[in-house]
Amino acid sequence: MMRQAGRYLPEYREVREKIGFFELCANAELAAEVSLQPFRRFGTDAVIMFSDILVPLRAMGMEVEMAEGGPRLPHPIASMADVGKLHGFDAAKSTPYVLEVVQRLREAAGDQAAVLTFAGAPWTLACYMIEGGGSKSFSTIKAMLAHDPQTLEALLQLLAETIGEFLASQVEVGAQALQLFDTWAGELSPEDYRRWALPFERRVFQIARRKNAPGILYINGCAGLLEDMATSGADVLSIDWRIELTEARRRVPAFALQGNLDPAALLAPPRVVKRRTRTTIDSLGGQAHILNLGHGILPTTPVECAETFVQTARTWHGIAVPEMEALP
Amino acid sequence: MMRQAGRYLPEYREVREKIGFFELCANAELAAEVSLQPFRRFGTDAVIMFSDILVPLRAMGMEVEMAEGGPRLPHPIASMADVGKLHGFDAAKSTPYVLEVVQRLREAAGDQAAVLTFAGAPWTLACYMIEGGGSKSFSTIKAMLAHDPQTLEALLQLLAETIGEFLASQVEVGAQALQLFDTWAGELSPEDYRRWALPFERRVFQIARRKNAPGILYINGCAGLLEDMATSGADVLSIDWRIELTEARRRVPAFALQGNLDPAALLAPPRVVKRRTRTTIDSLGGQAHILNLGHGILPTTPVECAETFVQTARTWHGIAVPEMEALP
Repeated sequence: MMRQAGRYLPEYREVREKIGFFELCANAELAAEVSLQPFRRFGTDAVIMFSDILVPLRAMGMEVEMAEGGPRLPHPIASMADVGKLHGFDAAKSTPYVLEVVQRLREAAGDQAAVLTFAGAPWTLACYMIEGGGSKSFSTIKAMLAHDPQTLEALLQLLAETIGEFLASQVEVGAQALQLFDTWAGELSPEDYRRWALPFERRVFQIARRKNAPGILYINGCAGLLEDMATSGADVLSIDWRIELTEARRRVPAFALQGNLDPAALLAPPRVVKRRTRTTIDSLGGQAHILNLGHGILPTTPVECAETFVQTARTWHGIAVPEMEALP
Repeated sequence: MMRQAGRYLPEYREVREKIGFFELCANAELAAEVSLQPFRRFGTDAVIMFSDILVPLRAMGMEVEMAEGGPRLPHPIASMADVGKLHGFDAAKSTPYVLEVVQRLREAAGDQAAVLTFAGAPWTLACYMIEGGGSKSFSTIKAMLAHDPQTLEALLQLLAETIGEFLASQVEVGAQALQLFDTWAGELSPEDYRRWALPFERRVFQIARRKNAPGILYINGCAGLLEDMATSGADVLSIDWRIELTEARRRVPAFALQGNLDPAALLAPPRVVKRRTRTTIDSLGGQAHILNLGHGILPTTPVECAETFVQTARTWHGIAVPEMEALP
């Protein structure tokens, strides 16, 4: 589940009462602890490292705050001079806690579960950096794309190199798969996607893929982009719920697919969650499929519904969910 | 253009300085005036009636305010008792100004332009009524769909009948085409779309289609739903920018398509707007295509870019944009 360690879990909320969001990301012991909470509670097949896609931006010299309504970046990037103030970083020096969390998780999970790490893709990170937070229309970055493409290009290149190295360093110390979140690439036309998102996803995978760790690419609203996503260098495509999995399989048959239950489906009574989870599994016949949600789990999700989701996956048809290492 | 009469036009902003948003919708003289502003300025092929999809909700007994961040409905629908307090209405009695605007526009446009009206589809209106405004996750209505389907069903049925009649009455007095906005149906999985949005779109078109007025169906994020949309009873499918028009044509070849330039593309320099408009036109070879944006025009759009968009459409290849009446 995306945001597998998150606010829907009481044991997570308990930890968060004592510590701020980015402080938790930077505290290796507690970050490892909350990462393991859903693994211990549900027996998931993957331990997903607790962190945030904005963590590396702070190491690049960008100010990021977590406010009530979402992240806020008080000094957005508006010019080449702003890009010039940013810098790459060495994870071992600037974010040693990230590597330590991966190591702790690898040790704790043993051969019971794969350890997954993740990062934001350049386009999606640039959205936050240029809009100064979330956005409805992404009009600031889309205006920059048209009026000052050089600045956007420079920012995306810097991000691709930096994020690629950041992920590679985590694979080196034990992460067994990596998911690249290009969440907001689904707000681009296919033409703009091929120009402003895809090449930089490709570069990240190029740098980050070590030790045969599979790369997973997620885009929210990917239905118009699947064939292009298939050229990103990802091994697995993670699909949101706005397209049938069978249709995605038909269009990109060579790919393992991840997804795609609507996170809001986990707000239903458990018997409905069970039925919809089974339908989702059955739609791909269990072949080359990583069951997941179509986007992050909602904070209001009842724990019993998350549990039903995982338990149904583990028991329906007696299908053993394939180990991450065996994919694709 | 969607929101053709809107905040990007200085002459519209001038009117709005003197009058509130819903007051403007209810003032037939001024609403007709702002509807005609873009027609006079650009020579568009259609005059789109100025109104809002929430106007009929007020006539149904729902409180709706227009706040800074968007509409707010202070008493959202939460139960069958809440639905019971709503009622259908007769447009001639409850919203006579709507019919008067249509009549004024029909007279003013003569044979120079078609007059278009529009309404929100039941699912999309129910989103506002149940969430109490806009939403990111639509978790309240999606929880109702699972826990209290009877209430949601009753609300959607009432909306379908009411909106169908509301549109029919406007066709009777001169509207020559109608666009149904199921904007938030793109937030549903295809399975949920077929259950909770499509049947009610179908019912609206069934009631509203009079005098061969074509019906246009718009969904924001339609790439996973096109084949289902094709069964709605619409004559024209209005496509957002997240899918190539050529791909949409391939998938639903029998349909006239409307769209689909990214509204943010109008934030680019005029020469770029010109190039992208031409590319959009060329992608369908001018056949059974109503050039439009993929969603509402952004308030920050420079007027000269909107003008470039329309002028390019009217002059490129000397293609005459087909009259609405001739479609499909």
